[in-house]
Amino acid sequence: MAKPIVAVDLGGTNIRFGLVSSTGEVLARSQRRTEGQEGAARTLERILDGIAEMLDEAPRGVVGIGVGSPGPLDASGTILHSPNIPGWGRIRLRDAVLKRFGLTCKVANDANCAALAEHWVGVGRGTRNMVHYTLGTGIGGGVIVDGRVLEGRDCAGGELGHVTIVPDGLLCGCGNQGCLEAHVGATGIVKRTLTRLRQGTPSTLQRVAPEAITAHVIHRAAKEGDRLALDIIAETGRLLGIAVGAAINIFNPEVVSFSGGVAGFGPLLFKPMRSEVDRRAFRAMVRGVRFVRSRLRDNAGIIGAARALLIEIGRDPV
Amino acid sequence: MAKPIVAVDLGGTNIRFGLVSSTGEVLARSQRRTEGQEGAARTLERILDGIAEMLDEAPRGVVGIGVGSPGPLDASGTILHSPNIPGWGRIRLRDAVLKRFGLTCKVANDANCAALAEHWVGVGRGTRNMVHYTLGTGIGGGVIVDGRVLEGRDCAGGELGHVTIVPDGLLCGCGNQGCLEAHVGATGIVKRTLTRLRQGTPSTLQRVAPEAITAHVIHRAAKEGDRLALDIIAETGRLLGIAVGAAINIFNPEVVSFSGGVAGFGPLLFKPMRSEVDRRAFRAMVRGVRFVRSRLRDNAGIIGAARALLIEIGRDPV
Repeated sequence: MAKPIVAVDLGGTNIRFGLVSSTGEVLARSQRRTEGQEGAARTLERILDGIAEMLDEAPRGVVGIGVGSPGPLDASGTILHSPNIPGWGRIRLRDAVLKRFGLTCKVANDANCAALAEHWVGVGRGTRNMVHYTLGTGIGGGVIVDGRVLEGRDCAGGELGHVTIVPDGLLCGCGNQGCLEAHVGATGIVKRTLTRLRQGTPSTLQRVAPEAITAHVIHRAAKEGDRLALDIIAETGRLLGIAVGAAINIFNPEVVSFSGGVAGFGPLLFKPMRSEVDRRAFRAMVRGVRFVRSRLRDNAGIIGAARALLIEIGRDPV
Repeated sequence: MAKPIVAVDLGGTNIRFGLVSSTGEVLARSQRRTEGQEGAARTLERILDGIAEMLDEAPRGVVGIGVGSPGPLDASGTILHSPNIPGWGRIRLRDAVLKRFGLTCKVANDANCAALAEHWVGVGRGTRNMVHYTLGTGIGGGVIVDGRVLEGRDCAGGELGHVTIVPDGLLCGCGNQGCLEAHVGATGIVKRTLTRLRQGTPSTLQRVAPEAITAHVIHRAAKEGDRLALDIIAETGRLLGIAVGAAINIFNPEVVSFSGGVAGFGPLLFKPMRSEVDRRAFRAMVRGVRFVRSRLRDNAGIIGAARALLIEIGRDPV
C-alpha cells in the first residue's frame, strides 16, 4: 500500500490533523486548539507538534505534508492575509515544516482544499467542472476547472466569498462593501437580523439577548415558524443566488456544492437560492447543474489538503 | 512551413474570414455581411462560401477550420442561444462545415476566441492567468486559467458580461436584471444617458435627437467637456470596476485586458474603473495585475478562432 499523507486543516478555532491514504481515506485524526490570540509563533508550534504526532502514526513514513490554511497565500506557501487568526500574516509555513521534518509540504487555501476533497472523493467525484462554497462565519470558494483546481497567479484565486453582490451593501472584513461574505456569512446573517430587531420587527428573537443571537439560533427560530427568521433565511438564499447565478455563467459547472454551518439551513436557504439562480443565469447552463450539500463534514479540510500535496508532487491518483 | 488555418469570426453585422498561420499571423482576409434577418440558412451559406474563398488562397491545404461565434454553445459545435443573430439558435455549424469540406472544424465562443488571441499573440502573451473583456454592444468574457481557456461543461463558460452587478438594475437581453452587459454594454450606456436626458439633466446632448445618441456620440461629448457625458462614462467605469474587482478575486490573474468600442473611452473609463477595483478587490491580488487594452483590433476574432482549432486538434504551438 502506498504511503499516506499527513494533512493539516488550520481553522480559526481548531487545527485538525489527519493521516490520509493515497486514495482519500482518513486513517487517523487528532485536533488541537488554534488559540490564535497567543500569537502566531505559538500557533505554528502547535501545528508542528500535531504533525509530529501524526508522523508517529505512520511508522513506514509518509509522502509529505499538506496544509489547508485560511486567507490568500502565495506559491511559496506564505500566507498573505488571514483576518481570522491575528498575527498569522506572512508566516512562512512551508519553510517551517520543511526545516523541522525535512518533508515536502504544500500549503493551499482551505476553501480550495474543500473543493479538492469534494472533487476527489465527495459530491463532485467524476466531474470536470465544479464550484464549491463553504458557508460558515466567512464564505470560502473553490473551483475545479476542467479537472484542476483554480489557483491563479499566486494560488490566491477562487475567493468566491469576496465578490460584490450589493454595491452599496454591508462592510466586509476584507475592506470592500457588499461582498457575498458580508451578507451571507454567519456574521452577516446575524448583523442583518439584529438590524431588523432594532427596527422593532416582531419576532420571538426579540426575547433573546442580542449577543446570544447566532445563525444557529436564527435557524431554530425559523424552524419554529418565526416570520422574521424565515424572512432573513429566505433573503440569505436570494443573496447567495445572485452570486451562484454569476458563478454558473462564468464556470458552466456540472456541480455546485455547499458545506459549512449555514448550509445546514437546508431548503429554507436553498429553495430561494434556486429561484434566484433560475432568474439570473442562462437556462442552458443551469439545466443539468446538480446543487448538492457536502457529506464530508469535518474531514473535507484534511482530505483536500492531502490531495493538494499529491497534486503538488505530481501524484494524481484519480 | 506548417499549413495555415481557415478562421471565421461571426458577428452580428459582419462575418470576417482569415487565413492564419500556425504562429498566429494573418496571411489573408475577407469579409461578408451577416444579414441575419435573411434567415439562418442564408447566413450559414455565406459562411461556407467565405470558407471556400479562403481555401482557394491556400493551395497547399489547411489544417482545419476554426469558427468564433457569439452565444453559448456546446461541445458538439451547436450554438445554443444567440440573441444578436435571429434564427441562428441550434445551428449545427460544425457538422455543416465537415459535410461541405471534409475538414476538422472547431466552433468556439467568440469572446473566448478573443481571449485566446490575446493570450497567443497579444497583450496576454507569456501569461498563465488572464481575464479578457470585449466591451461592445454586448459584453463578452474570456478567461485563461493556468494556460488554458475556461470552457466549462458545455464550452459555454466565461460569460463575464452576464454577472449581476446591480441586483435590481436594468433588464438584460439574457432575461436577468442588473447584468454587467445591461449597464456597461453600449446599449446600456445609451439607455442610462437617455434616462438622465429625459430627467432634464443639462447637457449638449439635449440638442441631439434621442435615436442619434450612441456610445460614440456620448464619448465625443465627454471629450468636449460635457458634464453629463463625463458622468455617464465615469459611472460606466465604476460599474465595470465592480465586475473586474470580483474577477480579480476569483481568478487572481496577471493581466486583465479589454477590447471593443467601449474600451475606446480610454482613461475616462479606466481611471474610475481602477479606483473601484482598488476599493473592492484584495490588495495583494490587484498588485501586479496589468490592465491593458487589446492591440489586435479586428483580427482578434480570427486569430483566436484559429488558435481554438489548433488546441482542439492537440497542436499547441506556443
